[in-house]
Amino acid sequence: MSGSRRAFLKKSVPGIAALSVIPDILHAHYPESGSRSGNLIKQDGIILFQGDSITDSGREKEQQLPNNARSFGNGYSFLAASALLSRLPEKNLTIFNRGISGNKVYQLAERWKRDAIDLRPDLLSILIGVNDFWHTLQKVYDGTVSVYENDYRKLLQGTLQQLPDVRLVIGEPFALFGGSAVNSSWIPGFEAYRHTARNIATEFNAIFIPFQEIFNSALHHAPVSYWAPDGVHPSMAGAQLMASAWIRAVEG
Amino acid sequence: MSGSRRAFLKKSVPGIAALSVIPDILHAHYPESGSRSGNLIKQDGIILFQGDSITDSGREKEQQLPNNARSFGNGYSFLAASALLSRLPEKNLTIFNRGISGNKVYQLAERWKRDAIDLRPDLLSILIGVNDFWHTLQKVYDGTVSVYENDYRKLLQGTLQQLPDVRLVIGEPFALFGGSAVNSSWIPGFEAYRHTARNIATEFNAIFIPFQEIFNSALHHAPVSYWAPDGVHPSMAGAQLMASAWIRAVEG
Repeated sequence: MSGSRRAFLKKSVPGIAALSVIPDILHAHYPESGSRSGNLIKQDGIILFQGDSITDSGREKEQQLPNNARSFGNGYSFLAASALLSRLPEKNLTIFNRGISGNKVYQLAERWKRDAIDLRPDLLSILIGVNDFWHTLQKVYDGTVSVYENDYRKLLQGTLQQLPDVRLVIGEPFALFGGSAVNSSWIPGFEAYRHTARNIATEFNAIFIPFQEIFNSALHHAPVSYWAPDGVHPSMAGAQLMASAWIRAVEG
Repeated sequence: MSGSRRAFLKKSVPGIAALSVIPDILHAHYPESGSRSGNLIKQDGIILFQGDSITDSGREKEQQLPNNARSFGNGYSFLAASALLSRLPEKNLTIFNRGISGNKVYQLAERWKRDAIDLRPDLLSILIGVNDFWHTLQKVYDGTVSVYENDYRKLLQGTLQQLPDVRLVIGEPFALFGGSAVNSSWIPGFEAYRHTARNIATEFNAIFIPFQEIFNSALHHAPVSYWAPDGVHPSMAGAQLMASAWIRAVEG
């Protein structure tokens, strides 16, 4: 290598602000008052991510191992779980992903014993609701927001009967207007599903993560195509934004 | 929900220390003096991850899209890239993963024009070397550490001829003794490959990431099976440990 190249390489690339946008985005909307209850990660804790395609994120479904990359796919649940496992090695955590693409809340209920109760989670994180609305637009489902609310309440009541000590994390369903799958037909119908999830979280004293508001703030920094091209499924950037919010939630 | 359950759920789970082990682990060995040169992430920057299976991490290889989860797999490169994309939305970054399982340094060279030079990276991160040694133990390769060193130097000299402004990040090859694939036959032979990577990094003024030392520190917190069960391929926890070190390196 020449001396001049070596000298060039030693120069600093012009500095920019530190990698700090995520905290800025999260700071505006998170944490919500009253929604946090101290650190939720217990020694030898079992953590379960449940939901639809956003949680599923291409995970393998034959072995469904805990703490395993292939069994986690590559979405927010992988990112959040990897952060926990790396930062808290002494905790001896067991973390599962059991999200399944396309699920609505009643479909969680159908597989809940096998895919939630039997895993005995200490911390149960659920993100469900976008399909409960979206599939009505697609005319493949005729549930209403009342069905969503009632099914969600019944699911959580049953969960607490069988797992009285479980702590709940509920993610706000979100849709980014202008994404390729999210047009004006989502307005205002989808909003009621978001509000319902928030109300359910309050009712069950769950940690609530306001994903819609977090994404709305992120849209000041980059367009929908950057965070979730179709408006529903997050990009790598969007998944990390969600994971960072999730970690911040459970850090307490 | 009953009042008593509601009261229970409002109690805090006993607090633990904040999620802070990663900084502790990294602090001991990182950053290395002289190895950092300010923030390396340029506006509209192109970033490329290169290497073997640790970098590949199950990525899809038909489309090989930038900034795409399936095209990144689920290893340290996905975790590091997701963090960058999320934290720096205004930077308009384009990030590629072109690691391929089983690669040794000469195999990088064979595909270097297509998989590195033609992508015009501003920042090129390379982790290569464990197979250059491992495959000799397996009797499927007869290269020596001198071959590794000379091939690596030639690869980087050619890279700088064609991309004179590129900044380099070189990861230390690592092997965790006691992993299912790493027994005493690795000692002391593998050490020379680690030292060679460090020397090459110094020679080319690359940012050097001392993965071996970082994992050695992590082993004070949890066993090999936790960070990399076979001693070579990181777990989710191990991949996040690597990604955190990588991010810290390029933050400058």
